[in-house]
Amino acid sequence: MCDTERIVDMKFDRKPIPVTDAVTKVMEYARFGGTEEVSINECENRILAEDITASHPIPPFHKSPYDGFALKAEDTKEAGSDNPVTFHVIEQVGAGHRASRPIESGEAVRIMTGAEIPEGADCVAMFEICQTQEENGKSYMTIKRQMEEGQNVIEKGSETSHGDVLVEKGTNINPGVKALLATFGYPTVKVGRRPVVGLFATGTELLDVDEKLQPGKIRNSNAYMIAAQIERAGGIVKYYGKLEDDFDTCYQAVTNAFAEVDMLITTGGVSVGDFDLMPEIYEKLEAQVLFNKIAMRPGSVTTVAEKDGKLLFGLSGNPSACYVGFELYTFPVIQRYSGVAKPYHRKIAAILGKDFPKPNPFTRFVRGYIHYEEGKVLVSPAGMDKSAVVTTLANTDALIMLPGGTRGFAAGNAVQAILLEDSTGQATFE
Amino acid sequence: MCDTERIVDMKFDRKPIPVTDAVTKVMEYARFGGTEEVSINECENRILAEDITASHPIPPFHKSPYDGFALKAEDTKEAGSDNPVTFHVIEQVGAGHRASRPIESGEAVRIMTGAEIPEGADCVAMFEICQTQEENGKSYMTIKRQMEEGQNVIEKGSETSHGDVLVEKGTNINPGVKALLATFGYPTVKVGRRPVVGLFATGTELLDVDEKLQPGKIRNSNAYMIAAQIERAGGIVKYYGKLEDDFDTCYQAVTNAFAEVDMLITTGGVSVGDFDLMPEIYEKLEAQVLFNKIAMRPGSVTTVAEKDGKLLFGLSGNPSACYVGFELYTFPVIQRYSGVAKPYHRKIAAILGKDFPKPNPFTRFVRGYIHYEEGKVLVSPAGMDKSAVVTTLANTDALIMLPGGTRGFAAGNAVQAILLEDSTGQATFE
Repeated sequence: MCDTERIVDMKFDRKPIPVTDAVTKVMEYARFGGTEEVSINECENRILAEDITASHPIPPFHKSPYDGFALKAEDTKEAGSDNPVTFHVIEQVGAGHRASRPIESGEAVRIMTGAEIPEGADCVAMFEICQTQEENGKSYMTIKRQMEEGQNVIEKGSETSHGDVLVEKGTNINPGVKALLATFGYPTVKVGRRPVVGLFATGTELLDVDEKLQPGKIRNSNAYMIAAQIERAGGIVKYYGKLEDDFDTCYQAVTNAFAEVDMLITTGGVSVGDFDLMPEIYEKLEAQVLFNKIAMRPGSVTTVAEKDGKLLFGLSGNPSACYVGFELYTFPVIQRYSGVAKPYHRKIAAILGKDFPKPNPFTRFVRGYIHYEEGKVLVSPAGMDKSAVVTTLANTDALIMLPGGTRGFAAGNAVQAILLEDSTGQATFE
Repeated sequence: MCDTERIVDMKFDRKPIPVTDAVTKVMEYARFGGTEEVSINECENRILAEDITASHPIPPFHKSPYDGFALKAEDTKEAGSDNPVTFHVIEQVGAGHRASRPIESGEAVRIMTGAEIPEGADCVAMFEICQTQEENGKSYMTIKRQMEEGQNVIEKGSETSHGDVLVEKGTNINPGVKALLATFGYPTVKVGRRPVVGLFATGTELLDVDEKLQPGKIRNSNAYMIAAQIERAGGIVKYYGKLEDDFDTCYQAVTNAFAEVDMLITTGGVSVGDFDLMPEIYEKLEAQVLFNKIAMRPGSVTTVAEKDGKLLFGLSGNPSACYVGFELYTFPVIQRYSGVAKPYHRKIAAILGKDFPKPNPFTRFVRGYIHYEEGKVLVSPAGMDKSAVVTTLANTDALIMLPGGTRGFAAGNAVQAILLEDSTGQATFE
């Protein structure tokens, strides 16, 4: 038996581990990347690294929700359609301004939406139910309805009390969170750092995107796809190009890149083929291989190694396997680094929308898309699911997780779906 | 009756129109913003402005999905556990390389995953089922199983034929679409231009985010929130700051800004209050007001005007109304400008997760969040739904659309939910 064969056989010894075990092993080395301060103008989709606490009550004062007249409700207790009650309008107050003095019985203040209720007033009569008139340079207002104390008044602190934690750290900053940051005076906000994720493609067969197709070759699509997945997960892509076939050049390139990044992804080169250099690179790097075979399809050869607390993800060169491997193992590590409190993709119980008759001895992750019907959530395969089919990925927003077994699955079966474009997440993989 | 009153009364004349009519009116003026060419490295979440067509079949040649030996299946027809068949291994072919000559009967080629099947071969035996040996400097391979023609061969064009439209224009570029662009050799791609959306806040009560809280005042949160919503929708924010109260200054600022942007948003100033300048600004601009009152809550005062084919969105100053008004009326206009084929938020039939007992004469949009239970999709109110409550928005990823009527709604009721963080969209509002 020649040397190459011995290596191949050695590689055949790989022991597949269950998906959940693989995720657990990887996440043991996932770490928080620390914080940085960013301007509120650049905080979208960053992860809060501090709780947002109400630095004042909301509203900070008794506030009018409408344009109208602030008055004492008691003054209207005799009002009726036959008995108009007239008030002296002593001043008007716009939002952002305050009344100059408390009102007395029989007085009203013309008040705008969002303005502070003058002292002494306890309700607001909307313009629509009031008649106004001027007499001798004085303004009057007449009302024919009874008002209740507190009517059309938003009480100070009724929405939020001072000191309430409104959003917890670890939360994605969406437009609503950003509004809160502005409300409570955060011109800058502490967020989790985004990891720099290094990326190499491997494969002699790979042409660059601007090269003409050549016999036996295909264009490199994985690197572009993974770059987009890294961005979607919140990482910063550092693309190092294609690894050469030569071991020493390859080893050196990986070593240099690994020093510059927070984690490193390679696509391809992890199988048992003669040209799959990654296993030997891990060995020479003295990286600890956490696993090199997973009981799943596609992506069984996905390999993750660790060195000095940093992770190296050896994703398959097969586009679908690469895609799935990233979302299962790399995504939560990026999320954890960024400080996301719930770093795993949200996994839901959905209804299978189409038959998937092919049984599989291993857990299968079928690329799918979520759709809805009358209160039900369904997930259907996005297209052909041969593991090499790149075209299916365009429609994918979920992975259908089908347990291994001897039977296929039928439309209507309960299945688990992993949501890929949902920012909710969950705290555990299961 | 004084002048101000007359204006107010005139404004009271506003006729509420149904939400659907309002959307239709706005979308009559929504237009596609044209295309631009971007690098594949910067195409994430842009909108395809050209179909992606397969410029070659996929795979472009008969391909091996595994490492193994390519051979003629016919040569194995006598093979069995008692009858090993031996092949002369004439060469090895890695992915990206080609065999130097067609194989003959009795010959095999060692082949790597992704490599082209040599001419003359019609199946691939995986390494795992083959024994190899060297004799007199020649390589041999022995197999004890029968192979079938086509076994472990991915046929040329089996995934995609030359000329197939794989992704239609108007689609959001996700990681899978990006992979396709790379596969078919798009170093640049034609995408829809992103609109520049101008933004003004109005309101004397508004403090900047870095100002200390003052009596009667609140910090400006709408501008920051809307900026994040514009970004989420795919627009480019151009923030002009706070409008002054003075009409002439205000009018000039709006006129100048309007000339620089593709559409303009103002928040606040559209009500019937004395300080609500927007209606008069529209008038002086000679803009056509499409509507200034909508039969909905919150956001009934949402005003949209048009001038020279450009839209001015007068959103409410109330945070929730502002948020909802943007998502219903501005979002689809931004999407249409960017070239999205399905410019409206996806609307689904969901199950109400919690009671919402308060009846409302008008259609109500309650901020909510989507959750799932055993194949069901539920939507629950995100918190208190007083129209001024900003805190609720942080948890919002959907709007619950409750029709107007005399009764409230109970958990378990079928309701419509508008998904705010879903890139699927739909072609019509209904």
